[in-house]
Amino acid sequence: MGKLTSLLTLLHNSSGEQEIKDELTKRGYRYTVGKVGAMDLFKVIAAIETTAKSNNIIDGDAYREVHALYHTILEALQGVGRGNVQFGEILRTVGLTFGIVRGEIEKYGYNGEWICVCIFGTIGAPKKGFEHDALGLGFNHI
Amino acid sequence: MGKLTSLLTLLHNSSGEQEIKDELTKRGYRYTVGKVGAMDLFKVIAAIETTAKSNNIIDGDAYREVHALYHTILEALQGVGRGNVQFGEILRTVGLTFGIVRGEIEKYGYNGEWICVCIFGTIGAPKKGFEHDALGLGFNHI
Amino acid sequence: MGKLTSLLTLLHNSSGEQEIKDELTKRGYRYTVGKVGAMDLFKVIAAIETTAKSNNIIDGDAYREVHALYHTILEALQGVGRGNVQFGEILRTVGLTFGIVRGEIEKYGYNGEWICVCIFGTIGAPKKGFEHDALGLGFNHI
Amino acid sequence: MGKLTSLLTLLHNSSGEQEIKDELTKRGYRYTVGKVGAMDLFKVIAAIETTAKSNNIIDGDAYREVHALYHTILEALQGVGRGNVQFGEILRTVGLTFGIVRGEIEKYGYNGEWICVCIFGTIGAPKKGFEHDALGLGFNHI
Amino acid sequence: MGKLTSLLTLLHNSSGEQEIKDELTKRGYRYTVGKVGAMDLFKVIAAIETTAKSNNIIDGDAYREVHALYHTILEALQGVGRGNVQFGEILRTVGLTFGIVRGEIEKYGYNGEWICVCIFGTIGAPKKGFEHDALGLGFNHI
Amino acid sequence: MGKLTSLLTLLHNSSGEQEIKDELTKRGYRYTVGKVGAMDLFKVIAAIETTAKSNNIIDGDAYREVHALYHTILEALQGVGRGNVQFGEILRTVGLTFGIVRGEIEKYGYNGEWICVCIFGTIGAPKKGFEHDALGLGFNHI
Ligand SMILES: [Mg+2]
Ligand SMILES: [Mg+2]
Ligand SMILES: [Mg+2]
Ligand SMILES: [Mg+2]
Ligand SMILES: [Mg+2]
Ligand SMILES: [Mg+2]
Repeated sequence: MGKLTSLLTLLHNSSGEQEIKDELTKRGYRYTVGKVGAMDLFKVIAAIETTAKSNNIIDGDAYREVHALYHTILEALQGVGRGNVQFGEILRTVGLTFGIVRGEIEKYGYNGEWICVCIFGTIGAPKKGFEHDALGLGFNHI
Repeated sequence: MGKLTSLLTLLHNSSGEQEIKDELTKRGYRYTVGKVGAMDLFKVIAAIETTAKSNNIIDGDAYREVHALYHTILEALQGVGRGNVQFGEILRTVGLTFGIVRGEIEKYGYNGEWICVCIFGTIGAPKKGFEHDALGLGFNHI
Repeated sequence: MGKLTSLLTLLHNSSGEQEIKDELTKRGYRYTVGKVGAMDLFKVIAAIETTAKSNNIIDGDAYREVHALYHTILEALQGVGRGNVQFGEILRTVGLTFGIVRGEIEKYGYNGEWICVCIFGTIGAPKKGFEHDALGLGFNHI
Repeated sequence: MGKLTSLLTLLHNSSGEQEIKDELTKRGYRYTVGKVGAMDLFKVIAAIETTAKSNNIIDGDAYREVHALYHTILEALQGVGRGNVQFGEILRTVGLTFGIVRGEIEKYGYNGEWICVCIFGTIGAPKKGFEHDALGLGFNHI
Repeated sequence: MGKLTSLLTLLHNSSGEQEIKDELTKRGYRYTVGKVGAMDLFKVIAAIETTAKSNNIIDGDAYREVHALYHTILEALQGVGRGNVQFGEILRTVGLTFGIVRGEIEKYGYNGEWICVCIFGTIGAPKKGFEHDALGLGFNHI
Repeated sequence: MGKLTSLLTLLHNSSGEQEIKDELTKRGYRYTVGKVGAMDLFKVIAAIETTAKSNNIIDGDAYREVHALYHTILEALQGVGRGNVQFGEILRTVGLTFGIVRGEIEKYGYNGEWICVCIFGTIGAPKKGFEHDALGLGFNHI
């Protein structure tokens, strides 16, 4: 599920995207892709949560699901931040695409649903083009 | 370069791999893919460094290049570790595929070569199958 | 559940312990208390996991449950380590009591089971008595 | 002192509180309990410092004591934050009770006064009830 | 270069400063010293970047150089923050002097230019005099 | 005291050392300088602690003093490690000089003794010369 979520995010708006979506659908996974640009970290988290809720990936009225997603997002942000889970506080801004996938994993012991968030995009100085790619992946049971 | 390095790593041994390699070659990038499984973090770092040197991605006799690669690896490991850059110390083991790409980026201000390391694989308990996917990306000028 | 798990751990072998256990039982929670002393962090994690499995708090054959417990332990260790999730590596040793509680929480949105780990004990130099108290709490859906 | 500070905080406004306070008084410790709710981390720190000063746990005109308390609070916040010493920045809010205890410890080598801060409460999304318990303990010589 | 940058910063406005500057000039290094006081971390980063650009230590139009300096600053801030790369968020303020040095290092393997940032000053409560010294050093190829 | 400790360490075995030592003596401070090379972090900590005890900077039989020194060392190591307080675990080795200074600070509110540790040296790959300078400073009341 991690690989598919990563490819869904990385191939967004490119030719390989449909093939990944077909595979996700075939497996019965719920998924969505969204975008957010911000200097405030909390806005990135809010955007991912809102997208997950409005696309029915999670039930926003179930704390259990909100909790699972929140920690998955925090994990993915560790990869994006690489040692400092901070954006504007350390004078950097981000332009991110994120993919969220939820579903059952058919492996021994996995029993039940899992959720995966991939975040890919640019991170850098608040000056156009002065940025480079960043990537993170979070994974949790839900 | 971040997206290509990520796809090179994620699509390793799958059908899309050649297309990525062709694109990398077309851009004049040097690249390689390797694998490592370990509980010791330093073995993962050593494996990536050795692979980079033996495939002529970096010059192992130039501290400048070794330094650039080292920090790129550390960045990628932040994504894999998600808050704890530790494997065996916290009772988890990894099975990882890594891609390393180096070359010039034709964007304003980038002048010169950059290096990118993507690490993808499984992380989990020292029990077969009790693991999930993890991903990290590091990016640096060289 | 966090308060009860904390009190179960802090009051272990003291007069208030039975009252806490009665309350846990009344709520239908599964719980256990264990002890571990070590300089190696992974031994502390292993001791908590083993105790949880052998006392049927979690099913050791379900990766889902092992994953939930593992992240709960890591959270609790953040409180014990206070900034460095390391023991022997930074020349300190621990003598810890840990409580593990699992059960359903009857609050809106919590639907389903949660798991909580509290770790309390001493941390300090490898010299008897040159140590002070430390405490951590982890909390997760399972 | 760590256990007593933890119990003072956890049992605040419950039946066991007086017994803990009696023990603290018997030992000649100075102590207090306070509460704070916030999304801004600095407000939590300020609330604990102000409470300590206004209740004469520390002398607010002595940098030595302010310094000791500050680092004790930071340690306790590591347990509450569990890897990210951030609240509103990562879209979470807290409702916390904190206990502060200061006094001499009658153990070989401890000579002099020590200070301990325990923080217990809820941490979670900015939505009522979508939160779980968190706990932290700091300990320092003063 | 690390030692010279540190001494340039520590000896700023003291008798030994000229000797260090002479040595830096002799080696053909570009260097500057600046000051910044703030509670906002991003203002410290911005001040160092602006000083580096306006004194021609780096070319502000070259992302490559901006990237190298940025990571050097982040490294130095780790030493200043000592575990929490945060100032106002955790209720502390800083008054800092920083030195920036750039040039070629004549050691085997170093080939090319490197950049070094030293930050020295006070960190503490937002109350005059309630602060102590802090120091950090970052080092990078450029 | 932070500046003097830093200069004592940086100027060790150079011409300016005696002037710093004279100033330290004039102020009535106790101080020492030592060296350690290692891949194991705990050996660095042990070397600093042993040097402090054997040179009567701290009383090794007083946990209070050992505790104060330990946290001061950890702070200094944050500057040396710059984000990862790890050496051999992440495949790097260090060659360090450290200065330890203890004494009263004659500023309002400081009342009593403080301790300061500066660590300066090289950090890098386990290959001679493939290393660069690193620096850290810790500061604590004792
Ligand atoms: Mg996990
Ligand atoms: Mg970067
Ligand atoms: Mg949680
Ligand atoms: Mg301590
Ligand atoms: Mg370096
Ligand atoms: Mg301090």
